Amino acid sequence: MSQLWSPNVRELTPYVPGEQPREKLIKLNTNENPYPPAPGVERVLREFSADHLRRYPDPTSSALREALAQALGTTSANVFAGNGSDEVLALAFQAFFRQDKPLAMPDISYSFYPVYCRMYDIDSQRFALDDQWRVDLDALASDSGGVIFANPNAPTGHGHGREAIAALLDKVTDRVVLVDEAYVDFGGESAVPLVERYPNLLVTGTFSKSRSLAGLRLGYAVGSPELIEGLTRVKDSFNSYPVDALASAIGIAALEDGDYFEATRQAVITTRERTRQRLDDLGFEVLPSQTNFVLASHPKHDAAQLFVGLRERGILVRHFNTETLRDHLRISIGTDDEMDSLIEVLSDLCR
Amino acid sequence: MSQLWSPNVRELTPYVPGEQPREKLIKLNTNENPYPPAPGVERVLREFSADHLRRYPDPTSSALREALAQALGTTSANVFAGNGSDEVLALAFQAFFRQDKPLAMPDISYSFYPVYCRMYDIDSQRFALDDQWRVDLDALASDSGGVIFANPNAPTGHGHGREAIAALLDKVTDRVVLVDEAYVDFGGESAVPLVERYPNLLVTGTFSKSRSLAGLRLGYAVGSPELIEGLTRVKDSFNSYPVDALASAIGIAALEDGDYFEATRQAVITTRERTRQRLDDLGFEVLPSQTNFVLASHPKHDAAQLFVGLRERGILVRHFNTETLRDHLRISIGTDDEMDSLIEVLSDLCR
Repeated sequence: MSQLWSPNVRELTPYVPGEQPREKLIKLNTNENPYPPAPGVERVLREFSADHLRRYPDPTSSALREALAQALGTTSANVFAGNGSDEVLALAFQAFFRQDKPLAMPDISYSFYPVYCRMYDIDSQRFALDDQWRVDLDALASDSGGVIFANPNAPTGHGHGREAIAALLDKVTDRVVLVDEAYVDFGGESAVPLVERYPNLLVTGTFSKSRSLAGLRLGYAVGSPELIEGLTRVKDSFNSYPVDALASAIGIAALEDGDYFEATRQAVITTRERTRQRLDDLGFEVLPSQTNFVLASHPKHDAAQLFVGLRERGILVRHFNTETLRDHLRISIGTDDEMDSLIEVLSDLCR
Repeated sequence: MSQLWSPNVRELTPYVPGEQPREKLIKLNTNENPYPPAPGVERVLREFSADHLRRYPDPTSSALREALAQALGTTSANVFAGNGSDEVLALAFQAFFRQDKPLAMPDISYSFYPVYCRMYDIDSQRFALDDQWRVDLDALASDSGGVIFANPNAPTGHGHGREAIAALLDKVTDRVVLVDEAYVDFGGESAVPLVERYPNLLVTGTFSKSRSLAGLRLGYAVGSPELIEGLTRVKDSFNSYPVDALASAIGIAALEDGDYFEATRQAVITTRERTRQRLDDLGFEVLPSQTNFVLASHPKHDAAQLFVGLRERGILVRHFNTETLRDHLRISIGTDDEMDSLIEVLSDLCR
């Protein structure tokens, strides 16, 4: 602890992202997409003029926001773009959740939310999942300074339908409800169409999962112009140009290829269901999933030991060593071949 | 003002970056480099595999930090990398300047500093420049929660030598001194070699000016491991991966070409001196500059009117409408041809 740090920095417990190993492993630990980005991305790389990079990018990311609006069925005035959805979430915490009352969130959800709370001096109130490990929307409607949850939720994989979100928004009208849709394209139902009806709804999304662009850092938010303005004020007090010119061009190319998007997300969904069935055959309990991962536990085998056994055999999954999750493994959905290898090793380990 | 915003957001006065016009203008308003990035950047674009983008980047940016350490004559443990130096500055304000005492800064300097102060609830004390428009380092040594200034300073162009910075650091030992070296490569003297001697010195830099990569968003900080750790804690509570995989590869390519860097920065310096002379011939008062811009005023012509006249003739410069700066134009250094056009129009306007 350094005396040179701001006092608040001494109290931080930073987020720990999943490992990015240097050796060659079957990597099923950070919910990356097993398929490359759309072919148009390669074309942008081949054709983009390096000279263009000497100029600052458009600080409003208007072309990217226009493409996002088109893809999501909204208008660019309702769209905000940032350097990954983690950045968009951080800006949203500052823009909306620094309130007198605590922020309401599920006790099991994206583990970055409590980190943002500490960073921005925001109290939180955490609500247990229901008995089927679903986010308890009724509980989240209690009095608070704002509401946040992932839908589908991570690392549980369950997603509520749009009508359930609308019912929450009918009850919570005076504070921001942030629905983090990082995984929605793998079978969830997006709340974006509700944005017109509820000025306090903010939906966030990412190019890291269904668009195969985790390495590029692109995220977005959709909300009423009043929420977009709040985010923009915070952005312009932090970094005028968070989205670089090349990332913007690549993001647009990815959004334009609807057929490729459809084909790859369907491939992930098909592999997920096949994997669930095979894990089930091995005696695992696997939660239903609307995401590109599954959360699985085995009644007879310790999850931490399975994690180590898999790692020794060249397969990396994620194990969270927390009270509620330590019996589980979170397994990202790779290609069919990768999942075959996983099942083969697990068959061995669970023999 | 929305009731849905955090109270603090209602008080923000966001930074206003220089215009990025869509029409074709001679653009001398945001201190961009008139030369393209190093040829190796084009090669990275041609050769980078799109498939690589589906993976998250290295959260520690170790390869880029290694290349920076090499270029700057330090070690990677002393280097932090971020999504543009504006982001690095914002993280530094959070990491070091949220103290009980106000932050000391010059009254004329990079106009983003007061914006960060409002964003992070930091009081500031601003000290006047000396009678030659130089940063008053003696004044900045007074009791405070930290010190920040640009060196060379913007928009004045004057830079203090390394020994003057060392003298400041001999007096200020218990709080962070941040020296923002965005423009140092155009004739300033870098404080980076002082980092080993002073654990409270943080030096920031950017790829936007001398590396011709404003569109890519890459910045860095150099300091003691204890300061780098403070920055990293804040980064990991904000966005685990601020530097994307492609930006990192491009940045490394730019750093590796020392000859190109040397040739282009010398070209800018030569054009700057030629431009100063010709502005002087037109009756302008031009401050000496160690940057890629000049600050000029004309005793007989109103700066705002010159700004408008230039714009009408297709040349964009920067005019700050503040009490201290409204008599001046800040003119970025372009190619010799661009500066010839500028001088031609100004000769006309100052006739």
